[in-house]
Amino acid sequence: MAVVTLTFADRLAAEVARKRSQLVVGLDPRPELLPVELRGDIARFCCGVIDAVAPHAVAVKPQLAFFEALGIEGMAAFHKVCAYARRAGVLVIADGKRGDIGSTARAYAAAYLEGDDPRADALTVNPWLGRESVEPYLAAARRHGTGIFCVVKTSNAGGDVQDVTLSDGRPMWHHVARLVCEWGEDLVGEHGLSAVGAVVGATHARAVGEARKLMPQAVLLLPGVGAQGASPRDLERAFTSGPASALVAASRSVIYAFRDSGADFRTAAGAQSSRLKREVWAVSGW
Amino acid sequence: MAVVTLTFADRLAAEVARKRSQLVVGLDPRPELLPVELRGDIARFCCGVIDAVAPHAVAVKPQLAFFEALGIEGMAAFHKVCAYARRAGVLVIADGKRGDIGSTARAYAAAYLEGDDPRADALTVNPWLGRESVEPYLAAARRHGTGIFCVVKTSNAGGDVQDVTLSDGRPMWHHVARLVCEWGEDLVGEHGLSAVGAVVGATHARAVGEARKLMPQAVLLLPGVGAQGASPRDLERAFTSGPASALVAASRSVIYAFRDSGADFRTAAGAQSSRLKREVWAVSGW
Repeated sequence: MAVVTLTFADRLAAEVARKRSQLVVGLDPRPELLPVELRGDIARFCCGVIDAVAPHAVAVKPQLAFFEALGIEGMAAFHKVCAYARRAGVLVIADGKRGDIGSTARAYAAAYLEGDDPRADALTVNPWLGRESVEPYLAAARRHGTGIFCVVKTSNAGGDVQDVTLSDGRPMWHHVARLVCEWGEDLVGEHGLSAVGAVVGATHARAVGEARKLMPQAVLLLPGVGAQGASPRDLERAFTSGPASALVAASRSVIYAFRDSGADFRTAAGAQSSRLKREVWAVSGW
Repeated sequence: MAVVTLTFADRLAAEVARKRSQLVVGLDPRPELLPVELRGDIARFCCGVIDAVAPHAVAVKPQLAFFEALGIEGMAAFHKVCAYARRAGVLVIADGKRGDIGSTARAYAAAYLEGDDPRADALTVNPWLGRESVEPYLAAARRHGTGIFCVVKTSNAGGDVQDVTLSDGRPMWHHVARLVCEWGEDLVGEHGLSAVGAVVGATHARAVGEARKLMPQAVLLLPGVGAQGASPRDLERAFTSGPASALVAASRSVIYAFRDSGADFRTAAGAQSSRLKREVWAVSGW
């Protein structure tokens, strides 16, 4: 029996349609911010959040740094949380921003995007080392239906590198956007979207529109909504390539919503993600 | 009693002088390449290599990707190997090429470069997200005497991003080199070298000389010798800022030397690192 592996973007598009959602909930667990009754158990916290947001979020985005900061226990929690999310019908975007030469990138691909049951559905990737460093992820995408999001323009004040002007007058990140577009050309699925997406900070509303034009087939992953100050209203232009052509990521404003509302952390995360999902869907115009 | 924390570069300079070595041995453990009698136990393999190279190498450079690829056991091995190296009097440069927005970079700094007994002495860092993303490592360097090596020009064929021409005619990586120089200005120790170093591929001999001029106070970490094709002879110009102003990294050609020689893996790694150390020291002219 032939097994056809769907591309990452087609799997994503199916989930976006099913949940009517383009929301990604970032999992940035910090023991000191958790409800006291969890005693800093970040796996329990993240799994509770996943239960609460599963009807509203197409994906969760565990940020590897916060797990790595807690040593072996943290990494064990990361693996547990990834498996839990996938069983709950939520895609996993491992936010590691990995980037290394090809022979090393193969090990990162093996760590996150390969095998019979890859740990994550997608990985964020740093493009600074060029195409050679991205090839192993493209190979994984072909074989396993996984994807990557290349960090093109970040939500922080990173303009000292990304915004520098090139000889043709473009900003540096436009050049990288064009490369990302090329890297993803062979991996476009039935919905017209590629398994090679791009991270573009939602905090730069104009850049989001430019990114959409430069990378018409890329799924844009837009972090920075909520705690970092961006609003879904700024992101309308991101969705012109289809309902699944952009994902809006919110982290602290969802998972730590209980700290403001006083509600149970699951209730607060569920309510906040439900609200955001509807807000984003309305903005997307689909 | 006042405890004076030495800067990373001064600690490094003392070790370079003590061992008369600028050699860094990269630890890229792949279970399938290990001696059969170790049954894929990468921690035992790496600790054996450390015993063998400790008289000859100022530092080891465990490549996180290969440990991450092995899951929790891999990460447990990574922690064990770091602690073992530091007890053996060998500095640890964690090769993670991490890079993320400031609030996340703080977690990476906590994971590798902070605490009473930081896991590593230095971390390789990706500069694509700009100064804001590097600040947490600079803060760690001030408080804990740790360091970073920013990935400026890599040993792979990464020119599609790093070599693009800017409006003033320089290649992109020259711009990043200048930034790295600025980022490290406040962290220069008594030997005139900064805790903010730079990774420059030894495979680009001309770039190594340019990097030296652009970043006179940076310790240059030069990978690519051995399996990737560069020779120590190409690297003379890297050392003009002092004996500790450049480090030559070799990985596969040292740790897997037994596969060619047929000797015990420790004997082969010891012999190869001893040879490389003397070759590099002679080239450095100190």
